[in-house]
Amino acid sequence: MSEPTDPSNSLDAAVGRVRAAWGGGSPPGSLLDGWEPGAAGIDEVLRLARLYRTHRREIARARPLAGRVVAGIFFDPSLRTRASMEAACARLGAHFLYLRPGEGSWSLELRDGVRMDGAEPEHVREAARVLSRYADLLAIRAFPGGRDLVEDRREPAIRAFAAHATVPVLSLESALAHPCQGLADLMAFDQAAGGPPRGAPICLTWAPHPRSLPQAVPLSVVRMAAVAGADLRIACPEGWDLDEEVMARAREVSASRGGTISVYRDPDEAVRGAIAVYAKGWGPSRPTEGIGEHYGALPVLDRWRVTARRMGLTAGGRGAFLHCLPVRRNVIVDDEVLDGPWSRVTEQAANREFVQAALLLAWLL
Amino acid sequence: MSEPTDPSNSLDAAVGRVRAAWGGGSPPGSLLDGWEPGAAGIDEVLRLARLYRTHRREIARARPLAGRVVAGIFFDPSLRTRASMEAACARLGAHFLYLRPGEGSWSLELRDGVRMDGAEPEHVREAARVLSRYADLLAIRAFPGGRDLVEDRREPAIRAFAAHATVPVLSLESALAHPCQGLADLMAFDQAAGGPPRGAPICLTWAPHPRSLPQAVPLSVVRMAAVAGADLRIACPEGWDLDEEVMARAREVSASRGGTISVYRDPDEAVRGAIAVYAKGWGPSRPTEGIGEHYGALPVLDRWRVTARRMGLTAGGRGAFLHCLPVRRNVIVDDEVLDGPWSRVTEQAANREFVQAALLLAWLL
Amino acid sequence: MSEPTDPSNSLDAAVGRVRAAWGGGSPPGSLLDGWEPGAAGIDEVLRLARLYRTHRREIARARPLAGRVVAGIFFDPSLRTRASMEAACARLGAHFLYLRPGEGSWSLELRDGVRMDGAEPEHVREAARVLSRYADLLAIRAFPGGRDLVEDRREPAIRAFAAHATVPVLSLESALAHPCQGLADLMAFDQAAGGPPRGAPICLTWAPHPRSLPQAVPLSVVRMAAVAGADLRIACPEGWDLDEEVMARAREVSASRGGTISVYRDPDEAVRGAIAVYAKGWGPSRPTEGIGEHYGALPVLDRWRVTARRMGLTAGGRGAFLHCLPVRRNVIVDDEVLDGPWSRVTEQAANREFVQAALLLAWLL
Repeated sequence: MSEPTDPSNSLDAAVGRVRAAWGGGSPPGSLLDGWEPGAAGIDEVLRLARLYRTHRREIARARPLAGRVVAGIFFDPSLRTRASMEAACARLGAHFLYLRPGEGSWSLELRDGVRMDGAEPEHVREAARVLSRYADLLAIRAFPGGRDLVEDRREPAIRAFAAHATVPVLSLESALAHPCQGLADLMAFDQAAGGPPRGAPICLTWAPHPRSLPQAVPLSVVRMAAVAGADLRIACPEGWDLDEEVMARAREVSASRGGTISVYRDPDEAVRGAIAVYAKGWGPSRPTEGIGEHYGALPVLDRWRVTARRMGLTAGGRGAFLHCLPVRRNVIVDDEVLDGPWSRVTEQAANREFVQAALLLAWLL
Repeated sequence: MSEPTDPSNSLDAAVGRVRAAWGGGSPPGSLLDGWEPGAAGIDEVLRLARLYRTHRREIARARPLAGRVVAGIFFDPSLRTRASMEAACARLGAHFLYLRPGEGSWSLELRDGVRMDGAEPEHVREAARVLSRYADLLAIRAFPGGRDLVEDRREPAIRAFAAHATVPVLSLESALAHPCQGLADLMAFDQAAGGPPRGAPICLTWAPHPRSLPQAVPLSVVRMAAVAGADLRIACPEGWDLDEEVMARAREVSASRGGTISVYRDPDEAVRGAIAVYAKGWGPSRPTEGIGEHYGALPVLDRWRVTARRMGLTAGGRGAFLHCLPVRRNVIVDDEVLDGPWSRVTEQAANREFVQAALLLAWLL
Repeated sequence: MSEPTDPSNSLDAAVGRVRAAWGGGSPPGSLLDGWEPGAAGIDEVLRLARLYRTHRREIARARPLAGRVVAGIFFDPSLRTRASMEAACARLGAHFLYLRPGEGSWSLELRDGVRMDGAEPEHVREAARVLSRYADLLAIRAFPGGRDLVEDRREPAIRAFAAHATVPVLSLESALAHPCQGLADLMAFDQAAGGPPRGAPICLTWAPHPRSLPQAVPLSVVRMAAVAGADLRIACPEGWDLDEEVMARAREVSASRGGTISVYRDPDEAVRGAIAVYAKGWGPSRPTEGIGEHYGALPVLDRWRVTARRMGLTAGGRGAFLHCLPVRRNVIVDDEVLDGPWSRVTEQAANREFVQAALLLAWLL
């Protein structure tokens, strides 16, 4: 890598390159599903993220985003997402305003045209418009409700914020996307491959989980592996195939970048020779069958848990184990893997701060 | 407007004028009911608020309040109040310490002389004294309990903090006042009138609400309209007249400033020719009758909801619609008004940051 | 006192002295039970704390810890601890990241080797490792569960963080220690004695409390009084003697510093001639008898409540009343004492910010 050594010059230049590739020369618009920056924009975001990682202390002393305000609206819990956003803001000198609708701040009505005589005292239209006046960026975390998969795909909370905000909106995880996680994962693939993972075999493996989780993280992995032109192998049981619409677009992008996407039903086969194994529990795309019925059936589930034996099948037996965290030990993956030489989950989580700092700089410098 | 162009010089001068008018040349004392700064002080606070609005970016880079700490003690929920305080602090370089008694921090005993063997482990005397050592200003939000109107009028929480704190106390809404909202509203009247709203017809209209809300906001509107010498028209049903003690003082102030205050029972009549229509739900001053009985009676309530037709009766049919937010759409006011050309509620909410920044500068620069 | 007057020079020098005494010249390691800095290190921390207190405004303007991040993980509620940490961070320019496992951030599994298919989605190993990447220091508050005294003595939460974090860990109260409180208390003893309290009579008196509280605070008082070489008098009922292991070590340290530790069953006798009376409720070391049985028996409890009459028995009748707060008025101590000339509890709480600022500087400058 030949990053320039004067951090403030190179910071301006690197931000300029992100804006040239993604924003047409201006600060970019919202980041909701992760496709927005395009392949060139994503490359530049990662380059800026690496610059931030290398020069974090000097940048922190300069506080390039002093006086900037980022509002984080969290409909759902978080550890890494909030902590990494707050750390990135703090080191850049910006302020992260942490809001939880329904806990200390008002519950929000998301539907249009209703007579608001129920439990929610505030409409998302007012919240989005007003917060846009206090903050320079709105970052929204809103999981799907899990009761109506069609309604969930509409992503009502984050889409309403994006429609009514007058500043850019950043997704911190919605029903179908977790773009900051995706960028951190792409950085981890790069680290595992020792350079751009074009053509590199990467396995995304379904894992058992007591709850039927959303597909936001695996779909973001798929998007970023497609952008990278990786040889992506998805291992999952029948009935757990990922969202068709996102997959269709990912296949197109992957092909255009020289990559491949294939689906396996045998996790051992899928990890064979992989440079990285990304494990994640997720629920089915259609509500025809629930994971609940399967979860009791441990013989089946044990087959999907990532073990040291399976990691031994990876490239040189030394493939990277990745997971977005939080991870349920000995359910998703064995202690032996997480505490062993394969695990890169801490570095992967550290990447969250780096990529988010890059995004913040691209929007707010 | 002829604001000086060097923000740091003019900031010092503008802060000096606030202190001359309000604090006898020193940083001012507490702001609890909103009368404290006097008419001249209020004028200077708004002038400083406009200066901050114009030069927000430059001021934010200079961080004039670096190292200052503002403790916000929230007994009740909030979106704008917390977000605008936190944004104002962040842009000025101060730190906003957000505390919620009973959630993460201890519940507080407010009564004097009791044997504390119940649920509250900490007395407000200790909380006020200790927080005065960590913070340079205490900002308190404490709604009335709503069970005992006489006790509520005593405003036990904020009055106890004011009695025992050794730094200034700022009300972020109590039973009878919401002075920051009042200042933001006055700025909105100024914006609607295109200059000081002396003599300008302004309508404060009662609106239906599923809950019997406190009068803090309408009373603050009345106080600021009185200080401005506006032609204030209050429209409300019989039995919902505002607190007599506050109204008596407001009539005196209004008269001394060349204004008028009149009460209407017909909302159409009250809005006719108004430059601004301020809608707000509030409960009765005396517990003789509950809003609950009325709320079911929609024919009566529909009469009070603000509609596009009624806004058409304002000055030139283009009067400003104002509300402190959160607002219940299609209960208080129609979507058509809030999303239409009359609405100024977003600008009004934006004013919260500006006036609070002015107050913070007056206290802490 | 002859502190140098240029705060930034003297700050560097004072930090250097703390590191020489405690960290072998480097930033120190974790502070968990309070013994870690050693007597010389504790002296230097207090000296740095006094420097911070004297020059707080100038230091705040210089923001010596700009760009630094401190993660505070609060398993339990707090007012002073969080507020004083947040104030110290803000004034030094560092960012305090406030996290509450189970409220907005994930609940944590603390046990090793378990199959995580229960309520906790995240293991402390991942939390500690990941937060070490976002933050430069982890500050943990974790009270004992109170159901199993043997398990509680293991201090599972804070010990797990200390084992897996890759940055220093600071205890903000565990089962057996509250080292920041202990340092603030030592500063208060110094203030009460008008100089180092070597040989000074100090009374730690048990006080009634509706709940059986942990011993963290009284044990930290004992440790710091031992380090100071004070003449410590502990007054408590039979059955409420403090943790034997900590007491054994405290007696050794006390003897080596020329101090004494004695136990009284008569509180009047213990306070006679004392320069400071430190009141605190705590539960028994062994679960053989519960405080619940005693709490109803008011004649017995009244005997232990600190009254003005008892304070009259102190040195010159003007001994300092100390308590870590929150304090239950008229249960632990009478209003007359807390609002009277004896009380030093506000200054004692203010010391929290000063000693914590000193620790932050020692770790992060």
